[in-house]
Amino acid sequence: MEIFKTISEIRKYVKQERRAGKTIGFVPTMGYLHQGHLTLMKEAKKDNDIVIVSIFVNPTQFGPTEDYEQYPRNLEYDATLAKEVGVDIILAPEVEEVYLKGAVTTVRVDGLTDRLCGASRAGHFDGVCTIVSKLFNIVNPDKAYFGQKDAQQVLVIKKMVADLNFDLEIITVSIVREADGLAMSSRNKYLNQKEREAALVLYRSLQLAEQLVAAGETDAKLIKEEIIKLINQEPLAKIDYVEIVNQDNLEDINKIQGEILIALAVYIGETRLIDNLMLELKC
Amino acid sequence: MEIFKTISEIRKYVKQERRAGKTIGFVPTMGYLHQGHLTLMKEAKKDNDIVIVSIFVNPTQFGPTEDYEQYPRNLEYDATLAKEVGVDIILAPEVEEVYLKGAVTTVRVDGLTDRLCGASRAGHFDGVCTIVSKLFNIVNPDKAYFGQKDAQQVLVIKKMVADLNFDLEIITVSIVREADGLAMSSRNKYLNQKEREAALVLYRSLQLAEQLVAAGETDAKLIKEEIIKLINQEPLAKIDYVEIVNQDNLEDINKIQGEILIALAVYIGETRLIDNLMLELKC
Repeated sequence: MEIFKTISEIRKYVKQERRAGKTIGFVPTMGYLHQGHLTLMKEAKKDNDIVIVSIFVNPTQFGPTEDYEQYPRNLEYDATLAKEVGVDIILAPEVEEVYLKGAVTTVRVDGLTDRLCGASRAGHFDGVCTIVSKLFNIVNPDKAYFGQKDAQQVLVIKKMVADLNFDLEIITVSIVREADGLAMSSRNKYLNQKEREAALVLYRSLQLAEQLVAAGETDAKLIKEEIIKLINQEPLAKIDYVEIVNQDNLEDINKIQGEILIALAVYIGETRLIDNLMLELKC
Repeated sequence: MEIFKTISEIRKYVKQERRAGKTIGFVPTMGYLHQGHLTLMKEAKKDNDIVIVSIFVNPTQFGPTEDYEQYPRNLEYDATLAKEVGVDIILAPEVEEVYLKGAVTTVRVDGLTDRLCGASRAGHFDGVCTIVSKLFNIVNPDKAYFGQKDAQQVLVIKKMVADLNFDLEIITVSIVREADGLAMSSRNKYLNQKEREAALVLYRSLQLAEQLVAAGETDAKLIKEEIIKLINQEPLAKIDYVEIVNQDNLEDINKIQGEILIALAVYIGETRLIDNLMLELKC
């Protein structure tokens, strides 16, 4: 496995491999890798000849009051983990390599980005779409892999790829959880022991929703209220949003039917965590 | 020469040619070809193995009160001209092939697009950047060719290519003029005989500016006033803008020095025409 720091290195490599007829799977990450990321890489390895992982904490997707500076970083350890699952190349550029001085171009997906995390994090998805466009143009992959934990991100990226005619396929991989159910996230590192326990309330509230639906409840408002009630019982938790929406367009739904997404963002202490559940119901 | 109507046809063709090691030059146009376009195609033919020309009147770069519907179209004649200069492929898709229903993604270059044509034509450059991004992703060229007549467009596209890491080179080709100096434009077709004569005032005003600079005039404001005075002598002409700016950032300049752009947009009757002059002065 090699670590490239520059765009010219990765371009040269990709062109050479492409000329040799190799297919390229790409996993864009912000590093501090966990089993969720590694699952994406393993999937990429199954489907492609070459797996390229980018590790880049993208400043433009963080708001001014968010955790860009403190976001955890550990390239050396990341490299060890990536190598173990068969990654061929890590692209780990500095910010100055990625963003030219005076860069002023933004890729924006309207509509889908107004809601859920987009409502809480102004400009976040513009930053995501812009960096992902750049990385797609740099890496030129056949397939790119994203985790379902960022459900809205997956939807936004898929929309962008279709709308801008990127010639690649987006593959989504299910949420990977800790043994006790907490969705894996680099931000889990921020949690102290008490917060780590409290953080379980996200998954438990989704399980409650799943049970209610399984028992035949079809009133989205009622289910949402039950989720909110459960989360509010946890003193360290503060809800950012709880939404029950259509999986395709993220619009609110009243009746639980078809393909729905239950998505939530909750502060545990200072740490903002997200989780979600996708349900497909026969009408 | 072949004419493709679909994205899948052009993709298949490009992949095949690329596998065979061919280089691809791309000339995006809105059709109704004139010698300006043909010069771009000839340049592309010199530099590349394959030349692809797109002919697509892009609705998203026209404002609601602009001439999208009436914009001149003649694919059959365009094909004859393109074939004569050695074009290999024309991509001439329908609007529905290019813009998926519910497309919501925009590529935006800030700053450079606020001025000149961007100030007069709200949303124009968003439309240009979005369609050009799409076409770049569809055609995947090594080099793309743009006419210097759209000086601001060239600058915006170059910025976009750099900022989003498109892996291609933008080649700019000088303005091609009619024998009497009128810059070639598909919109010249709108002009009746009287307007056609009146339209010469654009070029004449640029020539006047060039003479003033050659005679040692360095006051941009004075030169601008002389341009405006000359154009206002033409009863059929109505100025949209006359600007003297820095070539790189389009910012106003006071003193004529370095690399400057004199750009103007003038209505001749109902028809909006643009023209420009680039000067490089030793300081």
